[in-house]
Amino acid sequence: MIFSSKFIEDAVQEFSRLPGIGKKTALRMVLHLLKMEKNEVDGFTTAISKMRHGIQFCSVCHNVSDGDKCDICANPGRNRSQVCVVENIRDVIAIESTQQYSGLYHVLGGILSPLDGIGPEQLNITTLQQRVREEGVTELIMALSPTIEGDTTVYYIAKQLAGSEVNITTIARGIAFGGELEYADEMTLARSIAKRLPIENYVTVHSK
Amino acid sequence: MIFSSKFIEDAVQEFSRLPGIGKKTALRMVLHLLKMEKNEVDGFTTAISKMRHGIQFCSVCHNVSDGDKCDICANPGRNRSQVCVVENIRDVIAIESTQQYSGLYHVLGGILSPLDGIGPEQLNITTLQQRVREEGVTELIMALSPTIEGDTTVYYIAKQLAGSEVNITTIARGIAFGGELEYADEMTLARSIAKRLPIENYVTVHSK
Repeated sequence: MIFSSKFIEDAVQEFSRLPGIGKKTALRMVLHLLKMEKNEVDGFTTAISKMRHGIQFCSVCHNVSDGDKCDICANPGRNRSQVCVVENIRDVIAIESTQQYSGLYHVLGGILSPLDGIGPEQLNITTLQQRVREEGVTELIMALSPTIEGDTTVYYIAKQLAGSEVNITTIARGIAFGGELEYADEMTLARSIAKRLPIENYVTVHSK
Repeated sequence: MIFSSKFIEDAVQEFSRLPGIGKKTALRMVLHLLKMEKNEVDGFTTAISKMRHGIQFCSVCHNVSDGDKCDICANPGRNRSQVCVVENIRDVIAIESTQQYSGLYHVLGGILSPLDGIGPEQLNITTLQQRVREEGVTELIMALSPTIEGDTTVYYIAKQLAGSEVNITTIARGIAFGGELEYADEMTLARSIAKRLPIENYVTVHSK
């Protein structure tokens, strides 16, 4: 596409770097921003800038946070003996949106995937072991995507915690195989947390 | 959706104001920006901010411009006796991208649409008449969308210019009725400019 303005061209270029945004969609967004009031556009850019520069990661659960500890870890009303282990921030948002879970979280930052070069060192597993040892966690709910990599991660973590008294469960398989956790509807996701299974059961079902 | 960070929430909120962006897509974009380097995100916000604050509208053709006159009007290599009349900036970009047109443009800023409260006063028609009178324009190519509103606008402008010697043509109807100009492929659009028809012809074909 040929633009008669460098400003437009640069803005379109930047927008088309976002996932799922081609040149035409980027142009539509840029022209929409062009029609908006200047202070509204300033609000848009400021929100993004603040987000990128202001965001921190919770020192306890590695969730995104506006301070040192995230709102969930800092909330005294949450059940501190229950920790839900998830792959990423999106999963925390998905589970929180069901409003059915009152425990804490632990964001791994990915799942074991040797082909992509992701081993245990790349994930927040050491801090999870530490939390289990030191913070009186009695239950770990594994809420990882039901893929081979997710299962491998569950097995790995269970093995690492073999000596401890923590009860490891996984969310119920209400979600289709190969489906992504973040796209599940809230009802299915809420039920799958309520109907979680002990890990022995999970292994049996899975190896059949 | 429940976010555990106000920063994320605000950024998602801002993104979901853009056309065609829902909450989930907005979140995907925000998390993508979160993974990008800080200076890359600064590049993104700066490009948008610069675009919104720096953009001007060409004093001649009302196209977007980085200065008082747009690159097209300022280019001495363009044919100044030919003016292509379009609805908006997107149409200029679409026609420029065909690389088959070497004349100038005139951006109306819309088309006549009484139901939406858009009359001749809301459009850049006075400046078009002025250009025809004062700048030696010999041909006006009407490149408006082939809808009732587009046709009405063509008739209206032709009527306003009745006394002048300018030759009014319309782009050839290679584009399907009800189709939007900006989504036409470049080949069809280029041909429809090359095969433009005199306005008498257009009226006859249309009233049959």
